Amino acid sequence: MSQFMDVHHGMKGLTADDLMKAHQADLAIEKEEGVHFERAWADPKSGTVYCLSEAPSAEAVQRIHERAGHKADEIHPVPLTA
Amino acid sequence: MSQFMDVHHGMKGLTADDLMKAHQADLAIEKEEGVHFERAWADPKSGTVYCLSEAPSAEAVQRIHERAGHKADEIHPVPLTA
Repeated sequence: MSQFMDVHHGMKGLTADDLMKAHQADLAIEKEEGVHFERAWADPKSGTVYCLSEAPSAEAVQRIHERAGHKADEIHPVPLTA
Repeated sequence: MSQFMDVHHGMKGLTADDLMKAHQADLAIEKEEGVHFERAWADPKSGTVYCLSEAPSAEAVQRIHERAGHKADEIHPVPLTA
């Protein structure tokens, strides 16, 4: 298992409710790929969303995000933390 | 106080020690601008670093990062979290 930070662009105007529903949609199916979405942060003005997850691979993260209806634009493994 | 996610590009080859030292350099002076850097995550392959902070403004975050020797490339307020 590794940690990943993924980024979604183009989400301008996202509301707290939109973010919560999107996160819940991920959580509902994440176990099927052995993924866990830990946190999500959003900037509705620039339309950027960051998701931190623990997962077996970037592909597993993407499969959950795609099935939940919001494919990530970037997925970075983040093996270093401080 | 608001939460911010800032992003640094071009940090390819960053080590765990580099990240820890950079984070410590921020922590050493952050109080002077009322900023607190909570976490940092790095992908040394793509050279991307994400920093989560609590701060009075994006400008305050940038002033600390600049004085610590690592100006951010993007700073996003992230008022929404899940």
